[in-house]
Amino acid sequence: MNDLLLRTLRGERVERPPVWMMRQAGRYLPEYRAVRAGHDFLTMVRTPELAVEVTLQPVDIVGVDAAIIFSDILVIPEAMGLHLEIEEGSGPGLSPAVATPADIERLSVPDAGKDLGYVLDALALARRQLDGRVPLIGFAGGPWTLAAYMIEGQGSKSFSRARRFLVQHREAAHELLSRLSESIAGFLEAQAEAGAQVIQVFESWAGTLGPADLSEFSIPYLARIVERVRSSTGVPVIVFPLGAGQALREIAERVKPDCIGIDWHTDPDRARTELAEYGVAVQGNLDPAWLYASPADIRDRTHRMLDAFDGVPHVANLGHGIFPDTPVDSARAFVEAVKEWRGSCLQVV
Amino acid sequence: MNDLLLRTLRGERVERPPVWMMRQAGRYLPEYRAVRAGHDFLTMVRTPELAVEVTLQPVDIVGVDAAIIFSDILVIPEAMGLHLEIEEGSGPGLSPAVATPADIERLSVPDAGKDLGYVLDALALARRQLDGRVPLIGFAGGPWTLAAYMIEGQGSKSFSRARRFLVQHREAAHELLSRLSESIAGFLEAQAEAGAQVIQVFESWAGTLGPADLSEFSIPYLARIVERVRSSTGVPVIVFPLGAGQALREIAERVKPDCIGIDWHTDPDRARTELAEYGVAVQGNLDPAWLYASPADIRDRTHRMLDAFDGVPHVANLGHGIFPDTPVDSARAFVEAVKEWRGSCLQVV
Repeated sequence: MNDLLLRTLRGERVERPPVWMMRQAGRYLPEYRAVRAGHDFLTMVRTPELAVEVTLQPVDIVGVDAAIIFSDILVIPEAMGLHLEIEEGSGPGLSPAVATPADIERLSVPDAGKDLGYVLDALALARRQLDGRVPLIGFAGGPWTLAAYMIEGQGSKSFSRARRFLVQHREAAHELLSRLSESIAGFLEAQAEAGAQVIQVFESWAGTLGPADLSEFSIPYLARIVERVRSSTGVPVIVFPLGAGQALREIAERVKPDCIGIDWHTDPDRARTELAEYGVAVQGNLDPAWLYASPADIRDRTHRMLDAFDGVPHVANLGHGIFPDTPVDSARAFVEAVKEWRGSCLQVV
Repeated sequence: MNDLLLRTLRGERVERPPVWMMRQAGRYLPEYRAVRAGHDFLTMVRTPELAVEVTLQPVDIVGVDAAIIFSDILVIPEAMGLHLEIEEGSGPGLSPAVATPADIERLSVPDAGKDLGYVLDALALARRQLDGRVPLIGFAGGPWTLAAYMIEGQGSKSFSRARRFLVQHREAAHELLSRLSESIAGFLEAQAEAGAQVIQVFESWAGTLGPADLSEFSIPYLARIVERVRSSTGVPVIVFPLGAGQALREIAERVKPDCIGIDWHTDPDRARTELAEYGVAVQGNLDPAWLYASPADIRDRTHRMLDAFDGVPHVANLGHGIFPDTPVDSARAFVEAVKEWRGSCLQVV
């Protein structure tokens, strides 16, 4: 059994970093596209057999050290009562958007077993099919990320509607974020019970908030979720605050996750320095655009990234999701480069 | 004559920070929309009388301490031979996009006087009409920002085509950036001769590069431009590297601008600490979303931002362009809040 990821997240010494890739179950794989050709995206998400099939593909094809359940962060807003549409390639749509404080009253906190049972079934099935080969990761979107989508009703370049909501309806924003945090925490607890061995929270729109707003509208809610999930389930939690590389220290101190995902904007040396005193594991952070390089260059750049994180508990990953047009051989070159690397330092917590 | 901006950029002691707003000549002003109703965006850019009319509006209506010439960063790629289309609200388009290294050979370095004379004429006319009331700012896009648009042919969420070009055609990318830097520097020198008293370089897509790529593909070219423009014209240069708040120190050290624009992601205290040893002026950085707040809140948040920068040469500004749906009274509240504030520190270089 390959438990490199679990041991790394416990701060134990490991022979090499575990490696997986954000969006590893995705369009860059011909085998994924073959499944996708017969089913739309949400059907795949809602059908455990299909979700598990693509969840396991990168384990077999690319050789990653963890599987992450195939799903979408917007299943929670849907379970709270919004209508969800996803066209892969364009963006998702949620309707009706949360436009006023009154709209928040209509949102229910989901019963995960009932409203999101298809994800739990997929996790249980994936866990059985993995049969201990690699650990299984469950996930959810972060509270601000889901709130931003719910207010905008779709993706946005500036998220100015969502940011305006924070400014003009501050109390209502906190009510929305509280409800979301309760929904997210309940869903993640259910995922752990269903078989998820690690949890990742994607605060994908952290970078749309300035430092004061991040401190007020994201970090306290992430902290609440991490505290509740870890204390009730014991499962380690990775928080990935995309675009918030300037807030790593505050996140380590206030959110206290087992591991912080470092995005590709952040220099590994800088991340190390910022986080040195917190003993938190780090995950990341190869620029996914670098997978457009030759296999030799990918190997070289991956080794430099690993060298930079050498000596801290480190989960090798990209610093953002893999691009859909990445050659499979390039993904493989990245994974192989991690597997062949050996650090010179002992891992210390 | 109001020369607060010029004195601040020279590091002189001033009674209060000068204030202007990025995109201050824009759609949030009814008077701008009235001009725009009769002319398309590029006609306004290319017609000095119209460009100057909207350039001066915010000086009269909002009371800012500087005028910035109404133009667009993509006039340079157009002058280099690409076809430019701009639909305000959606995004700009450049065609044909730079898809291969061979496409770069077809790009000429513009003769500013001939190919961009309409911008120079607008500057000269604006300078005459301003008649010393406030200084006039000229500008250009940064080299990576223009390269990214030219490779993508349009805006992009991930700029993955442009980033792939850097990885797969490294030498050609440097050739493109060299040609762009020469074009930008020549254009900025001509702007200074035509009447621009301050120059701002918008490296708006700095945030799409990781730290290593920023160091290789943006910073050296910004340095080349700043060095050339300042030494040949003596005009102070502000560099605004949007999204590169983690690289402030490297930018101060290698680019050596007179002033660095700080975006709204970056905490003012952090910016101060990072830049303490470089004696560079700073510009920014109120979150433009905060202009959705009440006038009292805008005043309060603006004063806190000014307090945080108190003691360093500081040009008050937003940390990004003003949103088109910002109420004019909110813009005015921001400007007034700066004008009434008095710092407790002496300004030190």
